[in-house]
Amino acid sequence: MPEDDYGTWSPGRVEELSDGVIAIAITLLVLEIGIPTIEETSSDHELWSRLRDLWPSYVGFLISFITIALFWMIHHRLFHRLNRVNHQLIVANMALLIVVVFLPFPTAVLAEHLNHDGERAATIFYSGCLLVGVMIFSFLWHVAKDENGHLLKESVSRVEIAILDRRIRRSVVLYGVAFALSFLIPLLCLALLAALCVYYLLAPHALPKTQ
Amino acid sequence: MPEDDYGTWSPGRVEELSDGVIAIAITLLVLEIGIPTIEETSSDHELWSRLRDLWPSYVGFLISFITIALFWMIHHRLFHRLNRVNHQLIVANMALLIVVVFLPFPTAVLAEHLNHDGERAATIFYSGCLLVGVMIFSFLWHVAKDENGHLLKESVSRVEIAILDRRIRRSVVLYGVAFALSFLIPLLCLALLAALCVYYLLAPHALPKTQ
Amino acid sequence: MPEDDYGTWSPGRVEELSDGVIAIAITLLVLEIGIPTIEETSSDHELWSRLRDLWPSYVGFLISFITIALFWMIHHRLFHRLNRVNHQLIVANMALLIVVVFLPFPTAVLAEHLNHDGERAATIFYSGCLLVGVMIFSFLWHVAKDENGHLLKESVSRVEIAILDRRIRRSVVLYGVAFALSFLIPLLCLALLAALCVYYLLAPHALPKTQ
Amino acid sequence: MPEDDYGTWSPGRVEELSDGVIAIAITLLVLEIGIPTIEETSSDHELWSRLRDLWPSYVGFLISFITIALFWMIHHRLFHRLNRVNHQLIVANMALLIVVVFLPFPTAVLAEHLNHDGERAATIFYSGCLLVGVMIFSFLWHVAKDENGHLLKESVSRVEIAILDRRIRRSVVLYGVAFALSFLIPLLCLALLAALCVYYLLAPHALPKTQ
Repeated sequence: MPEDDYGTWSPGRVEELSDGVIAIAITLLVLEIGIPTIEETSSDHELWSRLRDLWPSYVGFLISFITIALFWMIHHRLFHRLNRVNHQLIVANMALLIVVVFLPFPTAVLAEHLNHDGERAATIFYSGCLLVGVMIFSFLWHVAKDENGHLLKESVSRVEIAILDRRIRRSVVLYGVAFALSFLIPLLCLALLAALCVYYLLAPHALPKTQ
Repeated sequence: MPEDDYGTWSPGRVEELSDGVIAIAITLLVLEIGIPTIEETSSDHELWSRLRDLWPSYVGFLISFITIALFWMIHHRLFHRLNRVNHQLIVANMALLIVVVFLPFPTAVLAEHLNHDGERAATIFYSGCLLVGVMIFSFLWHVAKDENGHLLKESVSRVEIAILDRRIRRSVVLYGVAFALSFLIPLLCLALLAALCVYYLLAPHALPKTQ
Repeated sequence: MPEDDYGTWSPGRVEELSDGVIAIAITLLVLEIGIPTIEETSSDHELWSRLRDLWPSYVGFLISFITIALFWMIHHRLFHRLNRVNHQLIVANMALLIVVVFLPFPTAVLAEHLNHDGERAATIFYSGCLLVGVMIFSFLWHVAKDENGHLLKESVSRVEIAILDRRIRRSVVLYGVAFALSFLIPLLCLALLAALCVYYLLAPHALPKTQ
Repeated sequence: MPEDDYGTWSPGRVEELSDGVIAIAITLLVLEIGIPTIEETSSDHELWSRLRDLWPSYVGFLISFITIALFWMIHHRLFHRLNRVNHQLIVANMALLIVVVFLPFPTAVLAEHLNHDGERAATIFYSGCLLVGVMIFSFLWHVAKDENGHLLKESVSRVEIAILDRRIRRSVVLYGVAFALSFLIPLLCLALLAALCVYYLLAPHALPKTQ
């Protein structure tokens, strides 16, 4: 039997499964938006106001959708730098997938309690889950770049690694700030999370570059 | 580091993720059809009448299913004309996926309120979401054909681009008319949307051609 | 522009999307099984009896799962005989996918009403949906084998086509008999549907052969 | 017509469908976690305590997620040793997928009844489903290694087969012990299942090796 237990686990294969799981998690988000029933709304006017009252659900849906999509883009970029994977990386990747798959739950909790009394708790819970996701990403990167693992492609230069280090550290700090804000002013925390979505979408250079 | 941030983002890869997301969104539609419970129906006769009363759900399910399937076919045809993708196109594609993933929600709202007092609001909301989807498609096409982006394959001729322009503009107009109708006569709006489904299914030449 | 609108729609690609949709529909079936709540069950004994009372859900889950899986196997075998696809075949395939995606709904209706007063109506509805699915399969095969379409690979012999004809016609008859039985003795209809599952699973030669 | 009915069913293709189904089942687990409503919780404090009370849901989610992920890893390793598949293997694989797809249901039952009176029944049901899954894996392996089937690649040595035999037998015993424990001390059963997750994640050498 070969010594290397992961000889046939190409980065591409792990990436494919991750893609599948991410695509499904991103799609399930919509199921958590509650549908206004005919019992609650007896006119066009009431339905419009009910649909308007659902804005926290739309906010949660959008932030979670874009954040997971960004995770997907960063995931793709990290994996394109890999030559091979090892067990530690697979476990880190699984931890990341657990957070991604779990996200529809804190999103629904946020949507239900935003603008109500449990708003602070829901925002702490939600931004905390996002922070955990970003931290696992950071861990994944540390496993990937570890010199003893020889996982990175040889073509990835030291300069590039340093840039990635800085960018990933910065995103941990930014999501950490959002998490801290959730304890003080929940809406400001969400505004920051939304701003991060817009920023990373419009400024691709702030993300780790594709190789 | 390479200058082109999207060197490895082949159109095929973006298409694959889009395919996955579209396949899931199309399948989730059925979950929004409410199941008649044994409490509501105490005989075969009552169950039949309950199943008949669910016709708005079937209508919504069918229009949304076919519309998303048409989106998928057009998406496939646009992407087959691409040589490479850029960040702007990826963002436009993500906006399109957000609308597709969101569609089960307006579909469920429509199914719940069709034939009831909130019918007009629900139809406006539903046809408005479809119009937004078609408009994002139009935007995606404009990003794709932009000469500075050099995204289109060289084999795509000016004549072909002009034909596509005309077809995509026409579909924006048609879905715009359906949206306008929803304010006046909601059922006529739905009849038009259903007619568009049948038309595009049976007349493939009205869609952008495959290359 | 090329004349053949489907030059790039290889059978493989249509098959991939179908595989995705089928995999998702098969997985969603479990969501329709109602979970016994702690309000209903205050002891181990009550939970066991509640889990036992859910047998119609398990029956529906199993028959639908295996039937969709069989559809998938037959679908795979038909598509492996194709050289290319045309628009008519894509529309037929989409009709088939609509039925597959819709199946969790009649399955849930059956599970809810089996062993209650609406049993007959639910069984008619359920077996009717399966029959429609089988009939669309039959239509798909007729489109595929149509000589003017030149869709079949040249290697498919006349003898083979005749065998497939007979097998597909027989399955339409068998599901038609099950549908007719549902009007008379619903449980016998389900027994026949279950027997068909077992038969096709254990006797692969009754299915169209792989090429 | 060729004699071998499965000539074109490469292991890769069956693996792909299985991957899709497993990815979806793993993602659906989150939908079974009940979302605390604003009616139940009128303050941050109450929401926190409600989120804390949901710990059985988190435990169920985690154990099921990791167990399905392990199934996926073992599945991958078995299929990489296969040269071809036969009908018996496809049926065994389908039986495995049925269990995987069904798992969100016992997981939800466990989450609902853990820490309540139906705890024992729910744990027996849950660990029983896992045991059935492991036993089907064992059966799958026996079909795969059967000498008359010639399914294994020639490169798989007798020593390797013996090691796999031992490992798979041991996992059946371990999940059997967990099942037996569920009748006596449900929480100990769950602790063992969680320990098995951690053990297999951290000790990849206990799993069948990749070839």
